[in-house]
Amino acid sequence: MAVYTEVPDDELARFVAEYDVGTLTSCKGIAEGVENSNFLLHTDRGVFILTLYEKRVALEDLPFFLGLMEHLALKNFTCPTPVKDRQGQALKQLAGRPAALITFLEGMWIRRPDTRHCSALGTAIARMHVAGEDFAMTRPNALSCKSWRPLLEQCGAQTDSFSPGLYKELAVELDVLEANWPDALPCGVIHADLFPDNVLFLNNTLSGVIDYYFACTDAYAYDIAVCLNAWCFELDGSFNVTKARALLSAYEVVRKLDRTEYDALPLLARGSAMRFLLTRLYDWLNTPEGAMVRPKDPIEYLAKLRFHRSVSSTLEYGIDPT
Amino acid sequence: MAVYTEVPDDELARFVAEYDVGTLTSCKGIAEGVENSNFLLHTDRGVFILTLYEKRVALEDLPFFLGLMEHLALKNFTCPTPVKDRQGQALKQLAGRPAALITFLEGMWIRRPDTRHCSALGTAIARMHVAGEDFAMTRPNALSCKSWRPLLEQCGAQTDSFSPGLYKELAVELDVLEANWPDALPCGVIHADLFPDNVLFLNNTLSGVIDYYFACTDAYAYDIAVCLNAWCFELDGSFNVTKARALLSAYEVVRKLDRTEYDALPLLARGSAMRFLLTRLYDWLNTPEGAMVRPKDPIEYLAKLRFHRSVSSTLEYGIDPT
Repeated sequence: MAVYTEVPDDELARFVAEYDVGTLTSCKGIAEGVENSNFLLHTDRGVFILTLYEKRVALEDLPFFLGLMEHLALKNFTCPTPVKDRQGQALKQLAGRPAALITFLEGMWIRRPDTRHCSALGTAIARMHVAGEDFAMTRPNALSCKSWRPLLEQCGAQTDSFSPGLYKELAVELDVLEANWPDALPCGVIHADLFPDNVLFLNNTLSGVIDYYFACTDAYAYDIAVCLNAWCFELDGSFNVTKARALLSAYEVVRKLDRTEYDALPLLARGSAMRFLLTRLYDWLNTPEGAMVRPKDPIEYLAKLRFHRSVSSTLEYGIDPT
Repeated sequence: MAVYTEVPDDELARFVAEYDVGTLTSCKGIAEGVENSNFLLHTDRGVFILTLYEKRVALEDLPFFLGLMEHLALKNFTCPTPVKDRQGQALKQLAGRPAALITFLEGMWIRRPDTRHCSALGTAIARMHVAGEDFAMTRPNALSCKSWRPLLEQCGAQTDSFSPGLYKELAVELDVLEANWPDALPCGVIHADLFPDNVLFLNNTLSGVIDYYFACTDAYAYDIAVCLNAWCFELDGSFNVTKARALLSAYEVVRKLDRTEYDALPLLARGSAMRFLLTRLYDWLNTPEGAMVRPKDPIEYLAKLRFHRSVSSTLEYGIDPT
């Protein structure tokens, strides 16, 4: 639930006039995204998202994010595209903040994805990975394995308020992840936050992937691991092997996974579960009482972590890699 | 800053399919309105607002609000119009809440209205008053003079935390307002909340008046009094007589004000200042700490109240009623 920065109308009018996008006819703050302020703009020529980057986003990362969207769009991967102003600039300033005008993608996100959606997702991730292969910029994954122990330390003793013994369980898990985290997997640009609310569909056809503000250079298979967690568990906590198989099979039609990637998948899935568990724990413990942003339930990801710990091979994800 | 109710996508798709509005292509919760949840919907045929009425809006008032919008639109007054479903229903249910689909009005609200905007506003209010003359339904003004003392009582001793002696000052003011509140002025449908954010402009031309959820049957001149407070004061607290004159003159081109209305204007403006001062005081004292909704500053309206108390005739509003 965002919109932190209010934009004076005269400043907004001047800002929009610097682009060749027509005349502004409406501007509504939208209640999406917790990192940035987002406005849905109508002009007499189209629909755009205006994003003001708030303090949680590092200014030095913005050229990577905006450059990536532009690169992917040029490769015909459907994603929001930064619009350049008449001077050729995509990253600008508005209301004292870094700001960008970005094309708006029609589509709805699916609250309860089914197997077809997982299959469409698999195809899209693989296409994105391939389209990003020749993207020149890199950005380390700021929320990868090395960042997790400091996060756990910051949650500290309060961690056990969610579940007795949780701190110890996560510390032991971190020992395993740190000792075994793979560093030689095929790498490239990954999205790193491929939750259902970042994948749009129109009539059950995938119409675009949005929100590249966690994108980074990391193992392709880690992106898949994030999706296994975010798309393939049922509400009752059970893992839906049919969805996982659909996702992986569709991915492989576009980009083959090699043996090292398959072997790493259970550990990557544990790691991905750890990453979202820890950031949710942290947000939960650091959200002021009475705030209107309801933090997401961390415990959902504890269950997912435990599931992947019990997995010995990708056979349990529905795939026989041999 | 709203969006309190989340709508499951399958329920939303079913809901939209009950109307003849095309296929849903996007739905964004918008960060406007504190009483309701509002979503901006795109379909392949147009743009709509979906409003879910939250608990602060009385269910029994909804037919008045929706009926009024429809009535005004039929009279060619530009306002959002409730869309009827294939069964002819405008007021429906969604996600367990009363809900309505309403046409979307393009336009931007003016953060710093100038004299031309005040003139356009005067014309629009008068047109709305005339268009509402034959609207059959009535609704008492729930936030008129009688409601103010209970509001002050609820704020109680905490009132003085804003300004020492404020409780006493307001209690004395209420004595005057209650003793002199006019009850024989020309009455009809008024908007009762005509702040700049409820009046849209496109290229400095007024393109519509929105948000009828305080509309009621009350003195027409009270609507003007609300506008004098909301549109004619400068940021430094000074009253801009040129704006007031522009507003009143433009109003009179469409609907003449009679002598009783002119004479009542200073008192109505005091009352209107009292109404917004009290609801802001109340909201300020009743907003949980850390909430993302920032209550509006009540003291702005104390200054306005004091200004109107010093006014003896509408000459000071730039108009000679003789």
